[in-house]
Order: sequence, then C-alpha cells, then structure tokens
Amino acid sequence: MSTSTAPLGPVLIVGTGLIGTSIGLSLRRAGIEVLLDDIVPGQAIVARELGAGNLLTEGAQPRIVVVSVPPRHAASTLARVSSDFPDAVITDVTSVKAVVLRDAISQGADPRRLVGGHPMAGREVSGATAARVDLLDDRLWILTPGEASDESLEAVSKMVAACGALATEMTPEEHDRAVALVSHAPQVLSSVLAAQLMSADPAHVRVAGQGLRDMTRIAASDDQLWTDILSTNAGPVADVLDSIIASLTAAREGLRAMSDGDFDPQITDILLAGADGQQRIPGKHGGSAAAYESVAVMLADAPGELARLFAAAGDEGINTEDVRIEHILGRPSGLVEVFVSPDRGEALRVALRARGFDVRA
Amino acid sequence: MSTSTAPLGPVLIVGTGLIGTSIGLSLRRAGIEVLLDDIVPGQAIVARELGAGNLLTEGAQPRIVVVSVPPRHAASTLARVSSDFPDAVITDVTSVKAVVLRDAISQGADPRRLVGGHPMAGREVSGATAARVDLLDDRLWILTPGEASDESLEAVSKMVAACGALATEMTPEEHDRAVALVSHAPQVLSSVLAAQLMSADPAHVRVAGQGLRDMTRIAASDDQLWTDILSTNAGPVADVLDSIIASLTAAREGLRAMSDGDFDPQITDILLAGADGQQRIPGKHGGSAAAYESVAVMLADAPGELARLFAAAGDEGINTEDVRIEHILGRPSGLVEVFVSPDRGEALRVALRARGFDVRA
Repeated sequence: MSTSTAPLGPVLIVGTGLIGTSIGLSLRRAGIEVLLDDIVPGQAIVARELGAGNLLTEGAQPRIVVVSVPPRHAASTLARVSSDFPDAVITDVTSVKAVVLRDAISQGADPRRLVGGHPMAGREVSGATAARVDLLDDRLWILTPGEASDESLEAVSKMVAACGALATEMTPEEHDRAVALVSHAPQVLSSVLAAQLMSADPAHVRVAGQGLRDMTRIAASDDQLWTDILSTNAGPVADVLDSIIASLTAAREGLRAMSDGDFDPQITDILLAGADGQQRIPGKHGGSAAAYESVAVMLADAPGELARLFAAAGDEGINTEDVRIEHILGRPSGLVEVFVSPDRGEALRVALRARGFDVRA
Repeated sequence: MSTSTAPLGPVLIVGTGLIGTSIGLSLRRAGIEVLLDDIVPGQAIVARELGAGNLLTEGAQPRIVVVSVPPRHAASTLARVSSDFPDAVITDVTSVKAVVLRDAISQGADPRRLVGGHPMAGREVSGATAARVDLLDDRLWILTPGEASDESLEAVSKMVAACGALATEMTPEEHDRAVALVSHAPQVLSSVLAAQLMSADPAHVRVAGQGLRDMTRIAASDDQLWTDILSTNAGPVADVLDSIIASLTAAREGLRAMSDGDFDPQITDILLAGADGQQRIPGKHGGSAAAYESVAVMLADAPGELARLFAAAGDEGINTEDVRIEHILGRPSGLVEVFVSPDRGEALRVALRARGFDVRA
C-alpha cells in the first residue's frame, strides 16, 4: 500500500466543535473531501452549514478519521472508529496523549493505524460557530506516532500540511511533559493565585495592577474542560508542580531568613533564573520575545485617537506587530505601546511626532 | 498651627528618579514650588531640565519633603531629612511600609511629622527621563499615617490631590499585606514559573502559548530592585507564599490521586475558586473585569489594516477600551479582539461588517 499517490480524502471528522469544524473548513479550503459526524446531530449540521463538509452517510469509507471530542471520550471514540473503519488511518486532537492512546489501544484501536495528534490552537470560546478556516494556519501540530506505520504517519502529516499547520513529532510522554510545563501547570498556578483573592479584603484587591491581571487571566477558563485535561495528564502536571513547590518553598525559606535579618541569596537567584527563563519563550512568529521594539505614545482615550495613531503607522508602511494599552484608573487617557520591527521604531517615532503625538519612548 | 490655609509648597523631592521626577512634574503643573535633590547631582539637574522644579539650595525651608529613593535607603533618608528640616512634613513613596517607617523612627525621624506613602504607579523603565507629568493621574496613592498629626496627614493628602492621584489610607501593616498579595507574591510566582523553563527542552518551550507568556512577563523585571522590595517585605510575602504552597500542594495531591485512578474534587475546587477570584480584580477605571464586550475581527496583519479597523470605530464614535492581538506562528495575520462598552458591541460589529471586515464574534 502506498498512500503517497493516493488522494488524501475523504477525511471523517468525529466531533464538530471548535477544532473539528476548523479542521473541516481548512481541509475543504484545500479541496479535500470532508465528512462530518457528531454525537449531537445538530452540531454536525451547523458545521456543514458553515462549509466544513458533508454529513457522514452509511457505508462511507474515509481514508482518515479525526477524533475531536472532549478528552474523557477520546480513547473510547478512537477504539470505536478503528473498528468501524478498518482501513482508515485514525488520529485525534486531544491535548493529552499518553493515557488517551494507551487506553484507546487497550480498548481495541489498531496501533498501526493510530497517530496521536494535538494542534496547538484554541480559543477561549468553543463550538462549531466559533470555528475559523485559518485557526490552524501556521500553528504547531504535535504528532505522536507511537507504533503507527510509516504510511499512517505520512497520511496524517499530509493532512496537517493541508490544514496549513506545521507538524512536529514527539513521543506521547514527551508531549505530555511539554504541555504539563507550558500549559497545564501554569493553569493550576493561575487558578491558585486567583483563588487567594477570595479571602482578601476588597480594598487590598483594589490596588492590583497589570501584573496580577496578566497572571490570573487564564484562571477564568472553563473548569470542566480543565478538570478533564488535568486529570488526564495528572502525573506530568504533578511532577511540574513538585518542582514549582520546591522552588517556592526555597523562596519562602529565603524570605523567612531575611525577615529574621539574615542575608539569603535564594530570592535573588530565583529572580535571575526567572529572567533567564522568560527569555526562552518564543514571541510572535516563533521569534525571540525581545525581537520587537516598543514605541510608547501618550494619547487621549477618545474616539479616533487610536485610529489616528495606526493610520500614521500605516501611511508610513510600518507594520504594527502588537499593541499594549496601559490602563489608568478613573480617567480615559492612557499610554499606548506599539511594537514594531526594531529597524522601524525610530521611523515610527519621527512620523508620530510629526503628527503631533506625544511620543514617550 | 493650621496647614489648611497655608500654601502647599515648597515641596522638596529627595531622589529624582522615575517617581520623584514625575511627582515634581505634576506639582509644577499645579503651580506648586518644587525643590530637587539627588545623591547623584546630575540626576537632579536632568529633573530640573525636564521641568520638575529647581535645585535645592542652602537654607531652603520646604513644607513637605518627599523621599523617593530605593527601598534600602528610605529609612535612613527619612531620618536625615526629619533632622535637616525640623518644621517639614515628611513622606516617602517606598513600596514597602512597616519596616521602613519603623526603622526611620528608630533612627530619629519624628513620627508626628511622618506620613508613609506609596503611589500605585510605575513603569518597567526607570530614571528621570522616563518620568511623565501624568504618571500619577487618577492612580491610587496609599497613605499610612501611623502616629502622624492630623496637620501632617492633611498636608500630604493635599499634595497627593495636587499630583492628580487618589489618596487612600491604610495601616503600614495592612499596606504590606495588600501589596504582598497583589504584587510581591505574584512576582515570585512568575519568576519561579519562568525559572522552570531553564531545565526544559527548547522543543518543549517552543509550544508555549499566550497563557505562559502572560504569566511570565513580569519575570523580566529588575532583580536588584525586586530583591530589595522582597527582602523589605519578607514576612508578609512569605505568609502569602505559605498559602499558595498549601494550595499547590493540595492540587498536586489531588492530581497524584487522579493519576492512581481515584476521583478527587480538589482540582475542580481550585479551578472554580480561581475563576471566582479572578472576577474580583478590578478592570480599567476600577470597574469590573467583565465590564467590556469583546468584538473579534480576523484581519490581515498588513500596514493599514489596524488603522482601518480603528478608523471605522472612530467614525461611529465608538471608543475602543482595549485591544488584544492574537499571534499566529509564522505568517502575519491574526485575530484582533477589540473591547468596547457592552452597549456598543453590536454597533461596532455592524459598522465593521459594513466595511467588509471579517467579524468573528
């Protein structure tokens, strides 16, 4: 068998939520036949109406089946579709891999046809209507082939490319450790920090600044989905928490020593290591976080002022890579930081000053 | 003695960095006489050139002295100026209060003339040249009067109002617990999280998303300043860390139980408490974080596109309260979320769709 010259479709999407429907939309964009199925038939119809494909019909023979259902249903669904479609390559999009794939295989999924997957894309909203044809464009899509055949991996890799995403391979265990570190443990940390505010005096919370806001933003995420994710990746997340708890305990002991008047270098060491670690996080387009230059402008928070600023940048052909608006309590005015390529910062400052803007840095 | 009819100045600023110079600028804006002093004479001259006041001269008799020096020098400087200017009211801007005020008094500062202060304003840059006349506008400025006389408190309160800020009173201990919770412990947490990345495989860090970026942003802060702040407020920060470590330990134990196949509600409880706590953080203008509506627009990340979007909003008289640009790896296109008053969201969607924008939600 050679999948290399065979057509990629039909691809069956099982579970037409945000991710499943977005995959359908991007495969249709690439001209690939897509079939849709959902345990809630109305959901599949919504996805069809959005242009994500046609409804699954009796006797259809998909070449690839993509399981995009909640984590707790992923293993059983993978086993079922492996049995229902004995010639199809099977993949999933679950944000946890080792447990899901092991359970799927123990429940009967064919390991030779099973390629685990996890596209690194999502939104804080869910459901088919939130889907976007470009949700997966240029996103990393982790594949965990395990014992899958080369042909199976090739088919899923081609499908990932057809969706506009960038495939990267890991073992299931490596994937789970990676997301435990960069996503799951930070979620727990954010929730734990935000939870401290429940017992605090509102007058104390009132003095909170942007730092606390940034650190607790993801604490607003869906508790059921996250219970599901964290319980499925419980071991690796607990391991990261072990390390975080050890560091925090060292920080606390250092602070207790300082409170008693003793010098202790641990706090400084942690601050230095944190600054180094922060530099390792990729910024936009996978580049370094320090790859952009900030231009700070103080402007009235009135209709039209932001437009005037961006129009000035646009007139000069300067691409604004990011924007941060600092908030000022009680009165509508603020500092706007515009991030541009380092080679365009000075040009933007000159252009803005020429238009009467109050450029600060 | 009655300060209520006396003129507010001259105000002497000791330490002309970011905060001291900004205070000078805003007092000068209010027509109040300002004198400037710095252990580095060149710094005071820079502040003068920026319009923050005149240099301190021999024999000057300030009515108020504002000490705005690094935390480790605050107590000794307060004691010195209390002795140098025996008729002046003394205040400071140090981000930690109990230890600083206690040490200042033990070193000779007059408690009747000493009003602790902490303006809730700052920038990630420092020095006189980063000062802004409106840095303090509408910011909370915490005052910890302690044993100060009513006249002393009244004088400092008037100065805070002249700077355009909003005075609020706390005890020094209450202040220190508040900032330990909303600022100092989050700083340690951010640094500890970012430090975990140092021992991680770069391929794992590469899959990081916006959540980790937000949570580690302040880990890039100045390690010397933060060692100074944390060591001066070591006890209250250690107390908050105690509580965070206890919650994280409970989360880890819950995860270990789940990893062994047992159901454990602790993780869900923590996620729910986190979502509740997050809602308690004030948003822009001191309102609730949920006070704005998000309008999501997919647009090409090309020069002029953001301008066209904001111009559309401005044309309709719709004020954009905040902007978030989602980043997509590798290709310049992205989802922009524009935050507006809840009663203007639909009008903005209609206006943007009429102009051909791809409005998503």
